[in-house]
Amino acid sequence: MHQNFNLIIEILGTISFAMSGSFAAMQKRLDPFGVLIIAFVTAVGGGTVRDVLLDVPVFWMHDMIMCSLIFFTCLISMIFKSVERKFRVTLFLFDSFGLGLFTIVGIQKGLSAELHPLICLTLGTITGCFGGIIRDILLNRIPLIFRKEIYATASLLGGSVFLLFVNYSRFSYTFVQISTILLIVGIRTLAVKYQWQIPKFYGSEQNSEM
Amino acid sequence: MHQNFNLIIEILGTISFAMSGSFAAMQKRLDPFGVLIIAFVTAVGGGTVRDVLLDVPVFWMHDMIMCSLIFFTCLISMIFKSVERKFRVTLFLFDSFGLGLFTIVGIQKGLSAELHPLICLTLGTITGCFGGIIRDILLNRIPLIFRKEIYATASLLGGSVFLLFVNYSRFSYTFVQISTILLIVGIRTLAVKYQWQIPKFYGSEQNSEM
Amino acid sequence: MHQNFNLIIEILGTISFAMSGSFAAMQKRLDPFGVLIIAFVTAVGGGTVRDVLLDVPVFWMHDMIMCSLIFFTCLISMIFKSVERKFRVTLFLFDSFGLGLFTIVGIQKGLSAELHPLICLTLGTITGCFGGIIRDILLNRIPLIFRKEIYATASLLGGSVFLLFVNYSRFSYTFVQISTILLIVGIRTLAVKYQWQIPKFYGSEQNSEM
Repeated sequence: MHQNFNLIIEILGTISFAMSGSFAAMQKRLDPFGVLIIAFVTAVGGGTVRDVLLDVPVFWMHDMIMCSLIFFTCLISMIFKSVERKFRVTLFLFDSFGLGLFTIVGIQKGLSAELHPLICLTLGTITGCFGGIIRDILLNRIPLIFRKEIYATASLLGGSVFLLFVNYSRFSYTFVQISTILLIVGIRTLAVKYQWQIPKFYGSEQNSEM
Repeated sequence: MHQNFNLIIEILGTISFAMSGSFAAMQKRLDPFGVLIIAFVTAVGGGTVRDVLLDVPVFWMHDMIMCSLIFFTCLISMIFKSVERKFRVTLFLFDSFGLGLFTIVGIQKGLSAELHPLICLTLGTITGCFGGIIRDILLNRIPLIFRKEIYATASLLGGSVFLLFVNYSRFSYTFVQISTILLIVGIRTLAVKYQWQIPKFYGSEQNSEM
Repeated sequence: MHQNFNLIIEILGTISFAMSGSFAAMQKRLDPFGVLIIAFVTAVGGGTVRDVLLDVPVFWMHDMIMCSLIFFTCLISMIFKSVERKFRVTLFLFDSFGLGLFTIVGIQKGLSAELHPLICLTLGTITGCFGGIIRDILLNRIPLIFRKEIYATASLLGGSVFLLFVNYSRFSYTFVQISTILLIVGIRTLAVKYQWQIPKFYGSEQNSEM
C-alpha cells in the first residue's frame, strides 16, 4: 500500500511539474516542440539531478509510463490552454503541488540510501526545486526560487516536519506524507496571499558586478 | 567498417561544435582561454550529459585524441577568424552539421544500452542540443534552440526517420546515417532560408514574471 | 601528513567559496534561505561536477562535516555582513583563494584516478571554476569567469605549474601545493590591480543574436 501511494505521489508530482513547464513555455510563446522539451525538463530535472548525485539509475530512463505521462500532460495543457487563460493561478498551484510532492519523494530516496537526515532534506529540496530552476534558466527568467516568494523555504520547512514526524510520531506514514504536502502548498499559498517575506539583506546592488 | 564510420561521425560532430563554440565566444569578445573553454563545453556538453544519464564512462575522460582535436579546432578557428568575417553563415552551418551528427551518435548509444526507441530519441536530442544550450547559457544568450528557428524539431524529426529506417528498411546502415544527417541539416537550412515557423502559442508575455 | 594537509586545503577552499557565495547572494538581496542555498551550491558545485564526471561518490553526500562547515560559514557571513561592508575586496579575496585551493584538489583527484595530465588540468579548472559559474548563472549575472578579469587563465597556469613541479622537481609536495595556491591568488590579484587583459577578439557584437 505504501508502494502504491508513493507511486501516486510521483505521478501527481510529474503531472504538476509538466503542467507548470508547459504553461511557462507557452507564456514565452515557444512552439509545441519547445513546450514539450521544457515540460519534460521541468518534470524530470530535479529527480535527474538527485539520481545522478545518488549514483542510482536515472528514474525516467527505463520508465516509459513516466515519459508518456509527461507527453500527454503536455498535450492536454496545450489543448486546455486555448480555453483557459488564467495562467497565474494555474501555474502557481501546479508549481506548489509539484514542490510538495517532489520534496517528499526526494527525502524518501535519500532515506532508503541510508543517508544522514540533513542530506535527505537537501535531496528533497533539490528534487523539488531544481526542475523549476532549470526551467527558468532555459526560459531566461530569474529563477522563481530567488524571487520574492517563499519557495525553497517552504520545501525546507515541510521536509523538516516530515522527517520529525516520520521518526518521532505515531501517525501513519501515509498521513504524514499527505499532511506534509498540504503544509508545503499551504505555506506557499499563504506566503503569496499575505505577501509574507523573510527579511532580506540590504546590499549595494550597484556594486554587484565587480 | 561500421565502427570506423561511427568514429568519423563523432570526430566531425566534435569539430563542428568546437568551431561553433569558438565563433560564438569570439563574437562575444572573450579572451583566447575563454574561447577555448566555450569551445570545449560546446563540443563535449551534450555527450557528457548523455553519458552521465546512461551512467557510462564520460567519453572524453580517457580520450586524449578528442581533447586534442577540440584544442586544435579552436586554434584554427582563432587563426581563421582574422581572415574570414562571415560569422553568421559559418556558425550556422557548423551548428547544423553538429546537430545532425550528434543526434545520430546519441541514438546509437541509447540503442546499444538497449533502451526504448523513444528514450533513444530523447538521448539523441540531448546529445545534439545540450552542448549548444550550455554554450548559450554561459554566453548569456537566449538559447538558440528556443529562438525562432526550427532546431530541436529538426533533431527529433531526423532521429525518428533514422529509427524507422534502421528498424524497418533494407538500406545499409551507413546510408541511413548519412541520409539522416543530411536530412537534419536540410530541414534546418530550409527552415532558416524560407523562415519556416511552427505555429506558436499566444501568451500574455507581460504576465510571464509572476 | 599529506592526507591532513589535503583535508585542510579542502576545508579552506570550501569556506572560501561558501563565503563568496554568501556575499554574492546578500548583494543580490536574497533572503537567508536563498543565501544558504547559493553558499552551498557555490561551495560544492565544482567538486560535484568533478565527482559526477569521474563517477566516484559525490564528496559531500556522506560528509556531514563539510555540510556543517558550509552552514556555519554562511551563518558567520550573515552576521559579519552587518559589521563589514567592503564587499568588493572580501568577495574577491575569498573567490581567489577558493579558485587556487580547489584547482589543486581537482588535479589531485584526477591524478589518483590515473588520468592523463591534461585531463587532470581540465578537472582542476572545472573544480575551481564551476561553483562560481553556477552561482553566477543562478544569480543571473554574467559569469565572472567570462568578464574582464583573468580567472580561468590563472587556474590553468597555476595547474600547469603544479603538474610540472610535482613531476619534475624535487621540492616537497606540500611546498608545491602552497606555492601553486599563492601563485594563482597572486596572478588574480596582480591581474585585477594592474588591469591585465589578454588581447580579445574583435567581433561584431551586433550580429551575435543570429
